[in-house]
Amino acid sequence: MSSTTSSLTPTAVVPVDGPVAPRASHVRRRPLAFGDVTIGAGGFLGRWQSVNRDATIPHVLAQLEAAGTIDNVRRLVGLSDADHRGFNFVDSDIAKTLEAIAWEAGRVPDDQPWERQAQELVALLAAAQRDDGYLHSLYRGDEVFADLRWGHELYVLGHLVQAAVARARTTGRTDLLDVARGFADLAVRRFGPGGQVGYCGHPEVETALVELYRLTGERSYLDLARSQVDQRGSGVLGSGPFEPAYHQDHVPVREATEVAGHAVRQAYLAAGVADVVAETGDPELLAALLRLWDSAQATSTYVTGGTGSRHKDEALGDPFELPPDRAYAETCAAVATFQWAWRMLLLTGESRFADEMERTLHNAIRASTSADGTRFFYSNPLQVRTDHDGSSEFSPAGRLPWFACACCPPNLARLVASLQGYVATRDDRGVQLHLYTDAEVAVGASRFTVSTEYPWDGRVVVDAGPNGLAEDLSLRVPGWADPAAARLVVDGVERPVVVVDGYARVSGPASRIELDLPMPVVAVAAHPRVDAVRGCVALRRGPVVFCVEQAGLPAGIVLEDLALVPGSPLRTVGPVAGVDAPVAVEAVVVHRPASGGPLYRPVGSGVVGTPGVPPVERRLTVRAVPYHCWASRGPGAMRVWMPVAERQ
Amino acid sequence: MSSTTSSLTPTAVVPVDGPVAPRASHVRRRPLAFGDVTIGAGGFLGRWQSVNRDATIPHVLAQLEAAGTIDNVRRLVGLSDADHRGFNFVDSDIAKTLEAIAWEAGRVPDDQPWERQAQELVALLAAAQRDDGYLHSLYRGDEVFADLRWGHELYVLGHLVQAAVARARTTGRTDLLDVARGFADLAVRRFGPGGQVGYCGHPEVETALVELYRLTGERSYLDLARSQVDQRGSGVLGSGPFEPAYHQDHVPVREATEVAGHAVRQAYLAAGVADVVAETGDPELLAALLRLWDSAQATSTYVTGGTGSRHKDEALGDPFELPPDRAYAETCAAVATFQWAWRMLLLTGESRFADEMERTLHNAIRASTSADGTRFFYSNPLQVRTDHDGSSEFSPAGRLPWFACACCPPNLARLVASLQGYVATRDDRGVQLHLYTDAEVAVGASRFTVSTEYPWDGRVVVDAGPNGLAEDLSLRVPGWADPAAARLVVDGVERPVVVVDGYARVSGPASRIELDLPMPVVAVAAHPRVDAVRGCVALRRGPVVFCVEQAGLPAGIVLEDLALVPGSPLRTVGPVAGVDAPVAVEAVVVHRPASGGPLYRPVGSGVVGTPGVPPVERRLTVRAVPYHCWASRGPGAMRVWMPVAERQ
Repeated sequence: MSSTTSSLTPTAVVPVDGPVAPRASHVRRRPLAFGDVTIGAGGFLGRWQSVNRDATIPHVLAQLEAAGTIDNVRRLVGLSDADHRGFNFVDSDIAKTLEAIAWEAGRVPDDQPWERQAQELVALLAAAQRDDGYLHSLYRGDEVFADLRWGHELYVLGHLVQAAVARARTTGRTDLLDVARGFADLAVRRFGPGGQVGYCGHPEVETALVELYRLTGERSYLDLARSQVDQRGSGVLGSGPFEPAYHQDHVPVREATEVAGHAVRQAYLAAGVADVVAETGDPELLAALLRLWDSAQATSTYVTGGTGSRHKDEALGDPFELPPDRAYAETCAAVATFQWAWRMLLLTGESRFADEMERTLHNAIRASTSADGTRFFYSNPLQVRTDHDGSSEFSPAGRLPWFACACCPPNLARLVASLQGYVATRDDRGVQLHLYTDAEVAVGASRFTVSTEYPWDGRVVVDAGPNGLAEDLSLRVPGWADPAAARLVVDGVERPVVVVDGYARVSGPASRIELDLPMPVVAVAAHPRVDAVRGCVALRRGPVVFCVEQAGLPAGIVLEDLALVPGSPLRTVGPVAGVDAPVAVEAVVVHRPASGGPLYRPVGSGVVGTPGVPPVERRLTVRAVPYHCWASRGPGAMRVWMPVAERQ
Repeated sequence: MSSTTSSLTPTAVVPVDGPVAPRASHVRRRPLAFGDVTIGAGGFLGRWQSVNRDATIPHVLAQLEAAGTIDNVRRLVGLSDADHRGFNFVDSDIAKTLEAIAWEAGRVPDDQPWERQAQELVALLAAAQRDDGYLHSLYRGDEVFADLRWGHELYVLGHLVQAAVARARTTGRTDLLDVARGFADLAVRRFGPGGQVGYCGHPEVETALVELYRLTGERSYLDLARSQVDQRGSGVLGSGPFEPAYHQDHVPVREATEVAGHAVRQAYLAAGVADVVAETGDPELLAALLRLWDSAQATSTYVTGGTGSRHKDEALGDPFELPPDRAYAETCAAVATFQWAWRMLLLTGESRFADEMERTLHNAIRASTSADGTRFFYSNPLQVRTDHDGSSEFSPAGRLPWFACACCPPNLARLVASLQGYVATRDDRGVQLHLYTDAEVAVGASRFTVSTEYPWDGRVVVDAGPNGLAEDLSLRVPGWADPAAARLVVDGVERPVVVVDGYARVSGPASRIELDLPMPVVAVAAHPRVDAVRGCVALRRGPVVFCVEQAGLPAGIVLEDLALVPGSPLRTVGPVAGVDAPVAVEAVVVHRPASGGPLYRPVGSGVVGTPGVPPVERRLTVRAVPYHCWASRGPGAMRVWMPVAERQ
């Protein structure tokens, strides 16, 4: 193995940074240090982190072993004689798991249950690494970098680097960093200045290289990230079984106007570009990112925050193509959107990016994992029909323990383990709170606790103790909230809620801040061009999208035969048995049985008739449950978008 | 090569049978001899046959050469040193083309322009055939029959047999039959009694083997077809990248209750099962076929007759999952449905099967081919959005000359060349007319001409000359027609239209029969469970479905912003420039521009609001054109299902 591991710069060995730690001043907000925020174990995000630690990470480790993913590396050093198993990118699942373990080591430094396993894995990777730094469990000879379009080698490098950076940041250990830098230095030699023009068919290394630069100060990593971004879209990947857009090779990033192609690749690329902008301030790339973001938000994002409308090619699909039933909405795409959004938030300080982090986290991402943390959705549909064929891994009737393509579970594990890194930021004037959950925050002279039942209740209490806040605190007023209905009480005195750029700012030395965001149940309609949900609304309460399931309906009532009664009330009620959420939504529906009958029927001869609906048989109330809890009562029909009946 | 080619039974060498020629008496209707019907060149089907002969078949032959499909066979005998190109089933494209040429030889016996080419191809296939009869351009050694799930070897055999049967029937030539029987006999030895339990991952050989039995009288072919059907669903194909339903291996045929899996495989299998029933009378299989048919019609067929709702796995999808935009509706699936329907018609005599042949032929199938016969759709969506990414071969912006998977064009060629075989049937009481087009019919003592502008005008005139009909003639009254509005005039005398089992029967010796089926434009609504077209209607006139295209709309009007005005008239008008059809449909729409704006918006807080629509800017009229002509004015947005505006 080459000995390219230069000594770390002093700042890098101090285990303070969380995910994404910009060096340059091209960001308007800066992340806090990783230890500055402690998420309370009792809140929504804290419970999730506990489940992630207690169940998901051990489960993922066991599955990596069972699936042969670790054996794939062992065979390189003669410790396994099994054939390589899985796709050519499965090494990344090991890396993402190591990254999750690293963030856990930073989150709970006093108890690192997987450190021995981590060291063994790192030693295994180090032993398997070639002298020139190359490290991939499948490719050894002529295949090395022979198929940039599908080889996933730089993608694997990217995840390796992210794991190494996390491990160095939270534990100070550089063992994995040595391995990652060996591979990264090879990439620099091969694809850096004067080297081969080429980039990976699956973006990911860009964001990782920028993080590696941030940790090490080694400029060549940033330069490679930038050149990877600048080269992309020149078509060198060629065409194959997938379209160029699938590999994000259809257009140069600077010229891109709308999101396209493979949803995960698009969002990872955008995140990497944002990292490059954070370090370079490149205004043209920032403008491209804003165009891409706007197009995703305007035409290509599900109401749950999921993206990717097509199972075929895991693609975003056309603008306004947002079918709820065939929503692919891959878990990793939602994770990638979250990561992209965080970087946009740092770059711009605009609350809309935190809004999207919140939406995605509480809906598309949370839905992907069972309450017990050991079963997962790969795709996250917004509708399941009665008689759905749930035999496919990609449209299953329920969450599954693992996948042939198992990218999502370890991706969840690393995100959830690092959530405290995304709760707040700071700038020269103070601190900004973005994600609401029970937490303790200690940044510089500012120390305060956050108490809330969020996302089930919109009351957020900040307690800064008798000395009060040392600097300004900005609290996000989410896009879903009605600012006119919000209340802000500072040290017992009600203040007008003045929302600037999406935040209500409170200056020090306030001791106790209460922000109350009422959470009525809201009926949400989609843009008229979203043909797939014409005539329907979705129910949302705070950031949480709800769904109606066949489970819980009276006997003889089929979900598809229900329609919401226009003008009827939408009420928050208590929990539903078998659903891990403290609230549900009660709605009034009509039952219009429509089983049987022809698939098509004339409704007008020589004249435009109206489609019509079957007669109403009865009214009843149903309880909608949080979308992220769907299928927890077993398989069955589900829908987020409910038809609204005609006014009688 | 083995010498298993027994002499043909006397009936087989008489070139009279068309496609599907049952031997046994388990059918209620019998096909006419292939020469009994001559489709007039001036009608809709006749023009299509002319284009097929003049353009499609030469085009297909040239493409087979250009794509290397023929070279694949040449390389086996040292006549080409090119690598094998294309999928492992491309040999079937040669066979389908030979079948098309064979039907043409029967249709126009005096002019067989491709006979020399056909003989060369047959000689090439014979030379490439192994001594044991095996014939496949890709597999030679250990791969032979090693992967029944994906190998497509029996599928290739099936098409080879169909071509050989057609060639023997129409020309009396047994050269290709010798080759096909050599391969078929190998299949009998390998998979017949006492042999390997196994069947092809792509059904097709079943129908072919029954036809081979019909031609040769060799019972082992029928027995193999039957055992293939009976074995299927036992799971021996195992699971792979596709679900068992993809390969029609999820359930035994006798137990099947609903169509599932790969759309083409499902319909080909059903056609083969129907052939088995025709020869065996198996009531259990017939019951299964009827269940499958009913489920397809009730839940899984587009209004165009297309089937297959998913690009992913080319699958039928869940019941009522019928998205117009992502309709896969593969051309071959429509062809297969047509073939299945014909066999069901023979088995049952019920007009609903002829109705489906008509619907599929005039919409899903015809739409797949350009007016000039040299460009094709592989998938046949019912909607294309503004800003559609048409770069994919499977959702292109326009018809393409060829495909990486080129199954559809030669499938079209063989179907269109044999259309006269599907126009009429007979039973003991007389003749039944199923497809209306200009034609001359001479069956036994019955000789008559059919004159009609169908499908543009519903007036059908049968002229039996001064001697009149020698036996009963039953004229189909299509499901789309209103029997109460139909008129029947026999020898100048109006008669009540009595429809029995879908047909109006006229007894001899009538000389002139006029059946007039009025064709108002009808608004058609879908079953309420078809979520994807909620609030929409389709426009149909006679059997022809219409669509509205961006092409032809006034400047500044975007198709997606239009909605039909309820209660407004739907009028038949003259042709539209650039569209190869004599009629169009004029409809009144409102323009409600909806560009811009948020993707989701609240429409009720604590209450169910209605989705709402943008305000109407103006009314205008639009001209809908036959769906099968779509994209003939260039790429652009298109929709079959039009929203209906709320009543003002």
